[in-house]
Amino acid sequence: MEELKSLASVLLCVLCLCSAVVNGSDYVKYNTGAGVVAGKLNVHLVAHSHDDVGWLKTVDQYYVGSNNSIQSACVENVLDSVVEALRRDPNRKFVFAEMHFNKTPKAGWQIDPFGHSAVQAYLLGVELGFDSVHFARIDYQDRAKRKEDKSLEVIWRGSKTFGSSSQIFTNAFPVHYSPPSGFHFELTDDFDPVQDNPLLDGYNVEQWVNDFIDAALTQANVTRDNHIMWTMGDDFQYQYAESWFKQMDKLIHYVNKGGRVNALYSTPSLYTEAKNAANGPWPLKTDDYFPYADRRNAYWTGFFTSRPALKGYVRVLSGFYLASRQLEFLAGKKSPGPTTSALGDALGIAQHHDAVTGTAKQHTTNDYAKRLAIGASEAEVVVSSSLSCLASRKSGDQCTKPASTFSQVVAAYNPLGWNRTDIIRIPVNDANLIVKDPLGNAITVQYVNLDNVTSNLRKFYTEAYLGQSSKQVPRYWLLFQVTVPPLGWNTYFISRAAGKVKRRKGFFLAADSPQDKTVEVGPGNLKMSFSRTTGQLKRMYNSRTGVDVPIQQSFLWYGSMVDTQSSGAYIFRPNGAQPNVVSRSVPIKIIRGPLVDEVHQQFNSWIYQVTRLYIDKEHAEVEYTIGPIPTEDSVGKEVISRMTANMVTEKVRDYRADWSLQVNEPVAGNYYPLNLGIFITDKKSEFSVLVDRATGGASIKDGQVEIMLHRRMLADDGRGVGEALDESVCVRDNCEGLTVRGNYYLSVNQLGAGARWRRTTGQEVYSPLLLAFTQEKLETWTESHLTKSTAMESDYSLPLNVALITLQELDDGSVLLRLAHLYEEGEDAEYSTLAKVELKKMFKGKSIKQLKEMSLSANQEKLEMKKMTWKVEGESGKTHSPVRGGPVDASTLVVELGPMEIRTFLLKF
Amino acid sequence: MEELKSLASVLLCVLCLCSAVVNGSDYVKYNTGAGVVAGKLNVHLVAHSHDDVGWLKTVDQYYVGSNNSIQSACVENVLDSVVEALRRDPNRKFVFAEMHFNKTPKAGWQIDPFGHSAVQAYLLGVELGFDSVHFARIDYQDRAKRKEDKSLEVIWRGSKTFGSSSQIFTNAFPVHYSPPSGFHFELTDDFDPVQDNPLLDGYNVEQWVNDFIDAALTQANVTRDNHIMWTMGDDFQYQYAESWFKQMDKLIHYVNKGGRVNALYSTPSLYTEAKNAANGPWPLKTDDYFPYADRRNAYWTGFFTSRPALKGYVRVLSGFYLASRQLEFLAGKKSPGPTTSALGDALGIAQHHDAVTGTAKQHTTNDYAKRLAIGASEAEVVVSSSLSCLASRKSGDQCTKPASTFSQVVAAYNPLGWNRTDIIRIPVNDANLIVKDPLGNAITVQYVNLDNVTSNLRKFYTEAYLGQSSKQVPRYWLLFQVTVPPLGWNTYFISRAAGKVKRRKGFFLAADSPQDKTVEVGPGNLKMSFSRTTGQLKRMYNSRTGVDVPIQQSFLWYGSMVDTQSSGAYIFRPNGAQPNVVSRSVPIKIIRGPLVDEVHQQFNSWIYQVTRLYIDKEHAEVEYTIGPIPTEDSVGKEVISRMTANMVTEKVRDYRADWSLQVNEPVAGNYYPLNLGIFITDKKSEFSVLVDRATGGASIKDGQVEIMLHRRMLADDGRGVGEALDESVCVRDNCEGLTVRGNYYLSVNQLGAGARWRRTTGQEVYSPLLLAFTQEKLETWTESHLTKSTAMESDYSLPLNVALITLQELDDGSVLLRLAHLYEEGEDAEYSTLAKVELKKMFKGKSIKQLKEMSLSANQEKLEMKKMTWKVEGESGKTHSPVRGGPVDASTLVVELGPMEIRTFLLKF
Repeated sequence: MEELKSLASVLLCVLCLCSAVVNGSDYVKYNTGAGVVAGKLNVHLVAHSHDDVGWLKTVDQYYVGSNNSIQSACVENVLDSVVEALRRDPNRKFVFAEMHFNKTPKAGWQIDPFGHSAVQAYLLGVELGFDSVHFARIDYQDRAKRKEDKSLEVIWRGSKTFGSSSQIFTNAFPVHYSPPSGFHFELTDDFDPVQDNPLLDGYNVEQWVNDFIDAALTQANVTRDNHIMWTMGDDFQYQYAESWFKQMDKLIHYVNKGGRVNALYSTPSLYTEAKNAANGPWPLKTDDYFPYADRRNAYWTGFFTSRPALKGYVRVLSGFYLASRQLEFLAGKKSPGPTTSALGDALGIAQHHDAVTGTAKQHTTNDYAKRLAIGASEAEVVVSSSLSCLASRKSGDQCTKPASTFSQVVAAYNPLGWNRTDIIRIPVNDANLIVKDPLGNAITVQYVNLDNVTSNLRKFYTEAYLGQSSKQVPRYWLLFQVTVPPLGWNTYFISRAAGKVKRRKGFFLAADSPQDKTVEVGPGNLKMSFSRTTGQLKRMYNSRTGVDVPIQQSFLWYGSMVDTQSSGAYIFRPNGAQPNVVSRSVPIKIIRGPLVDEVHQQFNSWIYQVTRLYIDKEHAEVEYTIGPIPTEDSVGKEVISRMTANMVTEKVRDYRADWSLQVNEPVAGNYYPLNLGIFITDKKSEFSVLVDRATGGASIKDGQVEIMLHRRMLADDGRGVGEALDESVCVRDNCEGLTVRGNYYLSVNQLGAGARWRRTTGQEVYSPLLLAFTQEKLETWTESHLTKSTAMESDYSLPLNVALITLQELDDGSVLLRLAHLYEEGEDAEYSTLAKVELKKMFKGKSIKQLKEMSLSANQEKLEMKKMTWKVEGESGKTHSPVRGGPVDASTLVVELGPMEIRTFLLKF
Repeated sequence: MEELKSLASVLLCVLCLCSAVVNGSDYVKYNTGAGVVAGKLNVHLVAHSHDDVGWLKTVDQYYVGSNNSIQSACVENVLDSVVEALRRDPNRKFVFAEMHFNKTPKAGWQIDPFGHSAVQAYLLGVELGFDSVHFARIDYQDRAKRKEDKSLEVIWRGSKTFGSSSQIFTNAFPVHYSPPSGFHFELTDDFDPVQDNPLLDGYNVEQWVNDFIDAALTQANVTRDNHIMWTMGDDFQYQYAESWFKQMDKLIHYVNKGGRVNALYSTPSLYTEAKNAANGPWPLKTDDYFPYADRRNAYWTGFFTSRPALKGYVRVLSGFYLASRQLEFLAGKKSPGPTTSALGDALGIAQHHDAVTGTAKQHTTNDYAKRLAIGASEAEVVVSSSLSCLASRKSGDQCTKPASTFSQVVAAYNPLGWNRTDIIRIPVNDANLIVKDPLGNAITVQYVNLDNVTSNLRKFYTEAYLGQSSKQVPRYWLLFQVTVPPLGWNTYFISRAAGKVKRRKGFFLAADSPQDKTVEVGPGNLKMSFSRTTGQLKRMYNSRTGVDVPIQQSFLWYGSMVDTQSSGAYIFRPNGAQPNVVSRSVPIKIIRGPLVDEVHQQFNSWIYQVTRLYIDKEHAEVEYTIGPIPTEDSVGKEVISRMTANMVTEKVRDYRADWSLQVNEPVAGNYYPLNLGIFITDKKSEFSVLVDRATGGASIKDGQVEIMLHRRMLADDGRGVGEALDESVCVRDNCEGLTVRGNYYLSVNQLGAGARWRRTTGQEVYSPLLLAFTQEKLETWTESHLTKSTAMESDYSLPLNVALITLQELDDGSVLLRLAHLYEEGEDAEYSTLAKVELKKMFKGKSIKQLKEMSLSANQEKLEMKKMTWKVEGESGKTHSPVRGGPVDASTLVVELGPMEIRTFLLKF
């Protein structure tokens, strides 16, 4: 048999390979240059890519595009291809994530964060010089109402103090930050491309133009004027940017050819200019966009607390970072050498709205923590060498290498602008130590036994994270009081006592006076009473002020809902049952001493609490240790500490200023994000709680305050992260739920006096003393070092209503200084006033050659900042004039700050 | 209650938004400029995108990227982004589909076609001037063997006639046309990108370099020399090309830095040059790479027959296209005006290896058919206006609009280079017609009743495709014989007879002589005998040559396998049972007449066959009508016609020249693609079958020939198309399997004489007479028109061993002429000799001003073509010298052609 081939048909087949099959469509030059056209509906196409700084993948995985099985996303491709696409046509515009390049940003593009605080509005508007802020996430009920009365776009005044002088144009999107349905053009999207070549299959230009106009009119129906914004992008889009721009080029060209509406490439700034020109008037908004629910039963108030260990780590390192930058500046930057910038980068990344929120996947969270740890260890070197260098009487580089010999030298650095007295705790194994101040005087010490909970925790976590079992756990805490000047340090020396030290009274003292029903603790002015039978807190009493408030405290947990809408990393949704009281009666162990009284209480097998009252503090420090939260009963648990004060307080619950709230979640819908703390007042007193990390809190009933401390759940809440928030830690194959330890601080004050405690203590909590250790003989050390000093003139300190926010040496040698007034107008009778900072005294021995006042972000001179004016509904031109500091006189160099004012300077010495 | 915010931590959060988080990695300039390095293993990275011209989506959908839910693929993105990526770095190289731009291609890049015929090797090598061909698909057993003895790369000599003068370097890939595992870099791929920034998470350069070298060494182990090719691409890849090039840049840079192997951007041509420089010697290969199995039980021999209707349509239009281009040239191209180029484009697209193969999805196949129909209808206008214009005695544009009045004028155009006599069939309603030749003489006519199968088919399909029920079905076929000069036409006139025409003897005659056991039919030299009882064919007998061959013919069907490897569009896999004989006894209805005898046989309810023997033809034309193939029994069916000749033939079955075949599929593995036909011989005779479209065929037993005519299946065969090959057609909601009608041609000849019939008849089948119709009085028409004419000198015709392959006017007015010698060396005693064509006589009345001999694809002058020389294993330098025509003398303009020679010229008149 032979197969025969027809030459002609084989030929046809061969030859067709040689003829290009690509359809040679006629070249069309698209007219993409449209600007705003008056009298028409203008559709502002804002091309953007929302590229999370870590979420389902780590930030580096997103950048290079690895781990694509989790999510197909490569930011490098976005950047490369967008640059290329913009180069092709200069009319094209693009917004990358939340920044701009080489332009002074005038618009805040915070499209994804899960709610927005009024403080942000004020900072963005007044201090950064932004004209507008744009975002997608507002409460679904709020959105519905605002669509109805066309109030999605408002003038937002975030500050009570500044009122209209701090306003910002605010644009909440009608749907989300994605394009109208059908206008997604990512390479991998299944869309029917604009096909304008009538010779090709599927010519569809008219259909596209009609769809465009329909979508535009729909949005125009919820908008007050002739300008609407289309957010042309989504998460990690524009990986091949041309895929989007190609379609938008055609849409702009053909829609404008039709002439019914006007489509243009735009940006948030251009859009804002158009809005400003439209001249309003706009509705006014003054409070938060919190809490945020994206649908019934879905309040995003879980993330306030999710991953409390990460939140704690971030907060600790934030304070540490600010202090270490100060030291870096004071000692002078070393180049090359370790710097604080890695820590700064890590903290910047950790501020991402999927990082510190606790809504990233576990492996991404581990990466955030790793970056923080790497940054922190580098900054630690900066701190210890800077302190050593500053204190050294020798000059030059030798200062970085302290010799090591006998006694333990402890240098404490105070990053605050005020003189400060604090108790230091150091773990030791020897109870026979003496501590001397720089003058050689022995000072009071107190030993506290390390409790079992702490030593077991330490053992387990050391093994889990370092992979080695620790041979020795310290036996005691050594406590002593230190006094440190502002922006300065003091040095203390610990050495073994020559003979046996006589133990003072109160050392290792347990509960006493069993005849009383209650037991009172507290070595200073503040006292706390506990029930001897139930162990419960009964009251707090300040002997100096006479404020006396009955207060009960307990731990409870909400069972997590598992349902079509489960409780999870984002969303807090209790299962509807009343929260479970962990323990109505708890053993109490009291340790008294000259510096601190401690109340140790094991509430159950996984909740331990220590309440500490220090000799010179008028607050209680409460340390909680929670975990592993048990889930063997298949119930997720969200643990709170609830304080019930016998006060006639008032908190408006189940209420929103902007709309008539429909209550579906009576608990979750009343949770708010606590950044610094929470307080309640009645006609006589204030009860304040400060937290050591961001968390969620509420006042569900009058007189009650609850803060959520830890969460562990077994279901995902369906917002993308795809993992249950079930943090665990393993030693070899032995895994258990994560244990979290933290502090909160309680204070009772007379009505009107609480602010002072809160502001000052808030600063102290945020910026603790920094310690550095070395070993040397006291005499040798004092000979070669300054044992106590300050960067300021020795008798100077900042006013107590002013905080030093930033003191940082920049790469060009200039120094960034930020000062902030801590009080709102009227918040405190004495402190809500104009404050003055004398820069000359602040920088002892340094001469300020140049001073420029800058915007908060220091990217432009304050003088150059121009604010748009906006017309607000129902308002005449008359506005409130807040107290503000005047210009800085170049010779006196005194900086004035009005209430809540933040001033930013670039200095050259 | 009031929530408190820590200013410092809010600030940190705000400020982090203002600092770019993008990691400022140091810029690395990658060295991508490597060329071949002697003495090292050279890894040629050939970047490519295999972009099917329609498959799962239509070609236009692929181009613009619509219908992405089926397959995410947009060729426009590939082109745009590749151009951009190449511009970024001139060292980068790319192969787009199977073509190059602005370069004379020297390499065939046929990576995906499902097997390769030796004819292609010869055409690519000798006639197109390619040095090499590269592809992925060869039999899995063949591949295993070739990997073992390092013979994936061979010198392929595809032509028996030309031997070593037609060789081409052939590179079959060791795996597929994708990169080595792990080296896929499409945007959407889940790969771990090359990460060379030690500051980022996941630095992995060393791992990548090691993996690269491992993969290179693995491939080097199956390769003879120091050059291996990596096919860096896949189907519709490079939608964002930078994603690939970025990785390859880094790999080239770091691999070459390591120095163990040398990686370079390359192309098939550069690779071939390197291979040529390596100087072999190479193994020799002479036969096909057919049939192709990609694994056990998976012979890709189903596609030989899949979608026979489409295959038939393509074949009909291919012939029509060649003829219509001739007419376009002869009458002169009209611009603007209808042209044949749309048909040419549609046919080019239909040659794609997922188009005519029948392996595209149904909707894509519909698109191919639509394009063909659009092209064909435009070409029809060209044909009728050209013919009309050519025949008109008037000059100018009026020629395009023939007037219409009385009698039916039929103009027949002959696209062949030889004089030709054929029977024409025209459907009519009137049996009282006379047909006159141009001289006014009435000629013999024959009427044949339209059978019911045909009229029902016509009704159903008219309604299905035109959406209207046809009111009138023609009642008769009117047959008459025409004689047409080469490249010329003749005109016949049909009119109603004045009175009643006397019916001739034999008109409408049914079966006769019932006393004989057999009945013989055939008005000419060829006779066929059928059994009067079973209706079966018994023998074929040629009274002129005396050749007499007992032959039996039957229809059978293979049940299709449904299994982990089902039979489907690509793969033929019978279910293992013997094929079912459709009918062992079939009614027979005989129609005799002066021009044709017809044997009508209804084999079953869905197979109808008409065998026709014409007065002046020495072959039988067999028309089969198959369908709807029933599948109610859930069994797919693959229908064959099997002819069993009582001949002692020899076909080597279950054998491959290149390796020891392991037989898993005794039927499917012996199927071959039939393009023109198939024949068997014994010591006395030849039995030949010509087909009217591409199909599959085999000789499973000696003396047997089977051709597969139609396939309908219920399962997909798992090669990507994702649809069962279950063609159906619907009238409203009434759907049924597709019915296919076609012809094949049978001939018996003396041994050695068959070639002449096959070559000549093959040309006639491929290029039937073209008919054009108008209505006018015979006298009026003949006054104003040339009724019979030829483009050649009136007494000239091409030699019978030469075919006119192409006669086409190009856009620049020059004319492309291709002539082909039809016979292999030694195929025919008389015709396998040097043939001569006198161009002056061929183009009557035209003067050839310039003649340039070109390569087959006319992209380069023949003179400029340079062939590489290759060393072949076991061969001395001595090679076979085939007979070839000499240079064309510019004054005589006589073209000589040796056996199988194709010569291509560009002419200017």
